[in-house]
Amino acid sequence: PPSKLPEIGTTIFSVMSALAAEKKAVNLGQGFPDFDCDPALPAAVTRAMQEGLNQYPPMPGLPAFRQQISDKIVSLYGQRYDPATEITVTAGATQAILTTLLACVHPGDEVIVIEPAYDSYIPSIRLAGGVPVLVSMELDEQGYSIPWGQIKAKISDKTRLLMLNSPHNPTGSVMTAADISALCEIVRGTRLLIASDEVYEHMVFDGMRHESLARYPELAERSYIISSFGKTYHVTGWKVGYVAAPAALMAEFRKVHQFNVFTVNTPMQAGLAHYMQNQAPYLELSAFYQKKRDLFRQGLQKTRFRLLPCAGTYFQSVDYSAISSLPELDFARWLTTEAGVAAIPVSAFYRQGKESGIVRFCFAKQDATLHEALRRLAIL
Amino acid sequence: PPSKLPEIGTTIFSVMSALAAEKKAVNLGQGFPDFDCDPALPAAVTRAMQEGLNQYPPMPGLPAFRQQISDKIVSLYGQRYDPATEITVTAGATQAILTTLLACVHPGDEVIVIEPAYDSYIPSIRLAGGVPVLVSMELDEQGYSIPWGQIKAKISDKTRLLMLNSPHNPTGSVMTAADISALCEIVRGTRLLIASDEVYEHMVFDGMRHESLARYPELAERSYIISSFGKTYHVTGWKVGYVAAPAALMAEFRKVHQFNVFTVNTPMQAGLAHYMQNQAPYLELSAFYQKKRDLFRQGLQKTRFRLLPCAGTYFQSVDYSAISSLPELDFARWLTTEAGVAAIPVSAFYRQGKESGIVRFCFAKQDATLHEALRRLAIL
Ligand SMILES: CSCCC(=O)C(=O)O
Ligand SMILES: CSCCC(=O)C(=O)O
Repeated sequence: PPSKLPEIGTTIFSVMSALAAEKKAVNLGQGFPDFDCDPALPAAVTRAMQEGLNQYPPMPGLPAFRQQISDKIVSLYGQRYDPATEITVTAGATQAILTTLLACVHPGDEVIVIEPAYDSYIPSIRLAGGVPVLVSMELDEQGYSIPWGQIKAKISDKTRLLMLNSPHNPTGSVMTAADISALCEIVRGTRLLIASDEVYEHMVFDGMRHESLARYPELAERSYIISSFGKTYHVTGWKVGYVAAPAALMAEFRKVHQFNVFTVNTPMQAGLAHYMQNQAPYLELSAFYQKKRDLFRQGLQKTRFRLLPCAGTYFQSVDYSAISSLPELDFARWLTTEAGVAAIPVSAFYRQGKESGIVRFCFAKQDATLHEALRRLAIL
Repeated sequence: PPSKLPEIGTTIFSVMSALAAEKKAVNLGQGFPDFDCDPALPAAVTRAMQEGLNQYPPMPGLPAFRQQISDKIVSLYGQRYDPATEITVTAGATQAILTTLLACVHPGDEVIVIEPAYDSYIPSIRLAGGVPVLVSMELDEQGYSIPWGQIKAKISDKTRLLMLNSPHNPTGSVMTAADISALCEIVRGTRLLIASDEVYEHMVFDGMRHESLARYPELAERSYIISSFGKTYHVTGWKVGYVAAPAALMAEFRKVHQFNVFTVNTPMQAGLAHYMQNQAPYLELSAFYQKKRDLFRQGLQKTRFRLLPCAGTYFQSVDYSAISSLPELDFARWLTTEAGVAAIPVSAFYRQGKESGIVRFCFAKQDATLHEALRRLAIL
């Protein structure tokens, strides 16, 4: 039978992680920390399992957990989401994204995606029967920026949804107040929905603030806001995320969610709920990662890599055109094999594999790992 | 915006569990045990978390876990699946089902579903763009049976896939060797795919054997075989399942899986893998639940409920027409509110809500719970 996703192979993250393991390279490709979470967090999960919290939770998630999520959002961004009807726990942000698209996008609907884009967006739109409409970020000396004019030009009656992502993977760019103004201006008077992937919300640097759409009622009213605990608490393998949206939008999300995963791991939810209750060090995460970014950038400055700005996320992109003229995937493979450091080609975030001579490193690593990577990269 | 699933509300399982909690009824509705798992299982998960297995596993699942799953299938059913390319770990069986359908069903393809059917099947087919083609099980003195003649009559060039489920939820019927012969005869020479939901595979009674499609190479070669650990190990809240399929079919599954959940909770996978290595008491599960079935049936025989056969699963269906002429949902609500025992209307497993005067009880409960339910039902 024909393939539903004929052009799709294995995600670049799996490909590069496998190559890194094979070549014993320092893996700065796939985004995950190489250090462990706070031991209080597994301890809380263990307690939940011992208390017998091993059966189905309610479909949208444990009420205490949804309450914690709601409290977090209101305290950070000022928007109150009703845990009963406006918050749903998901098996990670990726599941939240596919489910949002399946719930909102009808066959033939257009969905605007800004490239470079996380690699699940376009296939997920296709699986929902939608038509991806692509615009490219602009890249200049200041780094990447969102081309609002182009986006505006692409909006028509067929446009159902706009996919946003800030802090942005892979570019490390962060939406500003000016971006928000442009966005508000564009959506005003339309029925456009927004899916806002904010999984790096707690990693913004140099005193910038995260412009969650939850800060802006006129945006929040049409938005699915998606985040994840994996990045925030250093447990990418736990696969727990959430979606916040107004009740009417959430009702449609839940219709699909219940037939996708039905619900999410009970002990993990209980453990995270307990952990969130006892601490909220979100801002410390920015400071924590800013130090790592600075360490990594300082080291790279001694190489021929040209550093792109990094205002948020745990990703640093570099232009390698002074080093090699290989296409990005080949360069990433070469770097893994020959220099012993794995990276992700940014071309993998473009549907047509656009070549910009840029690869992405993940700096969510122990300082020792970053030093070792820098030692290996020093030859370049 | 219009709904993608206009006719869908909240799953009946959530609705009845919420009503049961509100009315303090004994909850024999939603299928989950009210007793805990073997403490060795959470202990194994705890060890995995302590060992730092908290980051992304490989996309298709931890290799050691896939190996255990493959070993189990070959030892029980004789079919060897390559863990590298033919086994994928899922966030429960429900996610496996939606993902299979999204991967195989093209817009306009027909999918045959046998009613009564688990409530996720039809919406999942719709989300994939498919057209559900329904046939109804026959019900006589011997219980429910699969109408192979009708199924054969519905197969055309447009038919992409046949959804099967044995042991069967909600009816407790189990496919026999005769069913398998009929199935082989029907699919021979066609390109029909099969999704086989076998989550109750380890619960078959009275010496019957589970006719996994993995026993039959000519079926296995076109089948996605789906199962779950929640039912087998009394951890429905852990949301871990798997799919086994030939490499070419699995490649398509994984294309979608990686953009749905990407991967599944690492510590749970590691804990389950460790636990499976040290024991395989699958047949004991049948004996364990057969005792509960017998206890429950004996008690119900003193009421005016007419017992339907129960050859597998942990569900007992009863005909209540000697007690009430209420529609099934109303009767289930009445039973919850007035008798204090929650059940699931079997009409919820029919798209048109077909009324047969039958409700389903779950007997995956402590003997004390079953006795209390029987005490309450004794008035009927
Ligand atoms: C889902 S695996 C990839 C992790 C990630 O978000 C990234 O590396 O971009
Ligand atoms: C996914 S909740 C329902 C559990 C179950 O399989 C059932 O009760 O039929």
